[in-house]
Amino acid sequence: MNTFETDYIIVGAGYAGIAAASVLHSSGKNFVIVEARERIGGRVNTITLPNSNTVIDVGAQWIGPTQHKIWDWVYRHKVETVEGHDTGKNIFNYKGKTIKYSGTIPKIDPLSLIDLGIAMKRIDNMAKSINVETPWSHPKAEEWDGITMNTWIRRNSLTAKARLSLNIGLETVFACQSSEISLLHFLFYCKSGDNLDALLAVTNGAQQTLFVNGAQHLLEQEVQPFKDKIILNQPVKSIYQDDKSVIARTKDIEIKGKRIILALSPAMCQKIHFEQALPKRKAQLLQRVPMGAAMKCFGVYEKPFWRDKNFSGQIVSDRTPFHVSFDCSKKDGRGIFLFFVEGENARDFIELPENVRKEKFLQEVAKYYGNEALHPIDYIDKCWTEEEYSGGCYTGNMTPGSWVQFGASLRAVTGRIHWAGTETATQWSGYMDGAIQSGYRTAQEVLQMSET
Amino acid sequence: MNTFETDYIIVGAGYAGIAAASVLHSSGKNFVIVEARERIGGRVNTITLPNSNTVIDVGAQWIGPTQHKIWDWVYRHKVETVEGHDTGKNIFNYKGKTIKYSGTIPKIDPLSLIDLGIAMKRIDNMAKSINVETPWSHPKAEEWDGITMNTWIRRNSLTAKARLSLNIGLETVFACQSSEISLLHFLFYCKSGDNLDALLAVTNGAQQTLFVNGAQHLLEQEVQPFKDKIILNQPVKSIYQDDKSVIARTKDIEIKGKRIILALSPAMCQKIHFEQALPKRKAQLLQRVPMGAAMKCFGVYEKPFWRDKNFSGQIVSDRTPFHVSFDCSKKDGRGIFLFFVEGENARDFIELPENVRKEKFLQEVAKYYGNEALHPIDYIDKCWTEEEYSGGCYTGNMTPGSWVQFGASLRAVTGRIHWAGTETATQWSGYMDGAIQSGYRTAQEVLQMSET
Repeated sequence: MNTFETDYIIVGAGYAGIAAASVLHSSGKNFVIVEARERIGGRVNTITLPNSNTVIDVGAQWIGPTQHKIWDWVYRHKVETVEGHDTGKNIFNYKGKTIKYSGTIPKIDPLSLIDLGIAMKRIDNMAKSINVETPWSHPKAEEWDGITMNTWIRRNSLTAKARLSLNIGLETVFACQSSEISLLHFLFYCKSGDNLDALLAVTNGAQQTLFVNGAQHLLEQEVQPFKDKIILNQPVKSIYQDDKSVIARTKDIEIKGKRIILALSPAMCQKIHFEQALPKRKAQLLQRVPMGAAMKCFGVYEKPFWRDKNFSGQIVSDRTPFHVSFDCSKKDGRGIFLFFVEGENARDFIELPENVRKEKFLQEVAKYYGNEALHPIDYIDKCWTEEEYSGGCYTGNMTPGSWVQFGASLRAVTGRIHWAGTETATQWSGYMDGAIQSGYRTAQEVLQMSET
Repeated sequence: MNTFETDYIIVGAGYAGIAAASVLHSSGKNFVIVEARERIGGRVNTITLPNSNTVIDVGAQWIGPTQHKIWDWVYRHKVETVEGHDTGKNIFNYKGKTIKYSGTIPKIDPLSLIDLGIAMKRIDNMAKSINVETPWSHPKAEEWDGITMNTWIRRNSLTAKARLSLNIGLETVFACQSSEISLLHFLFYCKSGDNLDALLAVTNGAQQTLFVNGAQHLLEQEVQPFKDKIILNQPVKSIYQDDKSVIARTKDIEIKGKRIILALSPAMCQKIHFEQALPKRKAQLLQRVPMGAAMKCFGVYEKPFWRDKNFSGQIVSDRTPFHVSFDCSKKDGRGIFLFFVEGENARDFIELPENVRKEKFLQEVAKYYGNEALHPIDYIDKCWTEEEYSGGCYTGNMTPGSWVQFGASLRAVTGRIHWAGTETATQWSGYMDGAIQSGYRTAQEVLQMSET
């Protein structure tokens, strides 16, 4: 057992952990970052495909207009970005019928459209009233946390098409089924990411901008000044704390420090044995933020051939398992087409052999855009539930009833343990920007607490 | 690192793990049981109070008529049992008004009574239609798993008193709020424990019979033949498996075997690092079965003085935090009075200093039964959320939507890993009897799979 001492221990080398490290580094503090995997990035993972040499983000990939913290990194490191393609006709596919339309609202029948519009307006109005710091303090918090979005949608949209649109929108944003989250969690998340429109949109929304060299590349720029502080391949298995110090133990090393930042999702914090039991609410909270299930399926083509036919690359469909697609092409002229497979569909789809998954993907793209889709240069898909140290993606979602009962424990410092991770963010929770916010907050916590 | 080899590894020395061990022992197999704590029992824990020398079960304590597996142990080991006291007047306390009544139905106003009766009848009818092996296969499974019990109760009971009764009943059975579980989970649990009446009742119900020497004592009898196989104080931190063997690692030891049985709640399985990632659905299921929060507060008196006033000791009340009480006196003439504090109340109450908790308990008992309550021989309370290796009590509850999406992964064998724990039971899930069922099942699995 290799034993050493530092001042601050950061667990997790994703955006949250690195953001915390950046602050500590700028403040001239001693720290280490301990990471379970053989790489940095966490739920951010950029790979280069073998045939096309294309850079693909199989994890988080987009940034949007009001994500100021990550934009600050973009400007500082001068990394190249590209706007997501958002012109041409979108497709809405429902019960075998394909509707082509422009803009974010499909040309469905007027009744469905009004119904959808009313439901979305209701959501926005409710979301506006949420305080993202304390969603549990809302006068209706208990009621809203006691009803699942599945129930709310059934109760508040009369038409099947509006229900489908809302369910697919939710599935795409949360990577889970509408029965898994409460109205209150949904509203918190909408407000945390500005509003529902921003969560769903490309232009002016969360899917606006891509990294030419990938989101992991930006992180690698950020860690340059302190990359010697990162210890890879060491999952932290237990944490001990007393009134003087904290000790993190992995299989091979034991690190003693003053304070520790857990830059992990709540579900992954569950893997750690806390030698001094956590406060009861915190311990129970960690059991109640399960990860979504997201799968990304990419086809890389010689060119974005769908654009020639005036398609945007954006599809919303009720066909299983491919519900939502985007054009993720960058600047090299190649076409990069992305289908998301989410929630229960992701869990089914990943069980198929890779060649079958690829074939289904190609057939599906061809169905909408023609046979050029059948000849990609590369295909890759990634299911995040496979990763022992992510347990799912994109984010952990509070279970119904949990915001009201446990919300106050989400960020509360417990002795020498500080809680980061995008799930603890108030702005853009669930996104890279939220992860950075959480890292900054915890770094400030440890600095303040160590001063006194 | 101490390394050794056996055939079967059982993780957890509660009722589930010991039941599995019993079968393996009878079959003449080699095995070890690895336990995180310094004692056997898990969520079963019997202690002897200092002043009165009274034996108290601060964990699971009752058994009921159709719990055949645990009754078999009772008969085999000839342990002494005693029927719970169930005569005299019960109390229903609502908005400051105290109603005294006999039987299980309070003398509330006729409208509330009819309302409650109709709601309970509806529950029973729905519960009857559930297949406890496959709750997700029910035609209405998706709908019922998408609505929380909080919503169902609000929608299906018109009167405030019926709602209160249902909410308190649910809270007492599940140790959580009605917003945390779905209708489907509620129905599964009712069916698994015969029906809602059986879950709530003393006579002919889950609270019928107590162990004179405690529930841990029975377990100690059962382990006698193989108690040398138990390794205490060794939380399992990681599991490796390949096509030939499985290896469990704790801080100090490494055990190699053919197969491993995890006799733990899903939430506690989360503490284990699986070196080969689990199947995705299984990994996500483990994130979705949070533990309830139950606290037991006991006062021990010279005699059960409430009986002299013709009280049963059973109270249902809307006063915070003491909602439900039982007379747990045994045969020695002492009075043992139990108040449950559940769900969010448990989380608040445990934060108070012990002397304040005791004083509140005594005042509350005195309120109903007079000042004799103020002079106990002993007071003890136990909050299970404090226990790092329980994470809560009594049981893990599937979150809304999880039965439908993940139910099929609950018991499915994953390579060399078998899944026990009362949460995996089909009969009396959440109870000691269910734990035994799960242990028996997994032992049979490993025996069958090793034969082939």
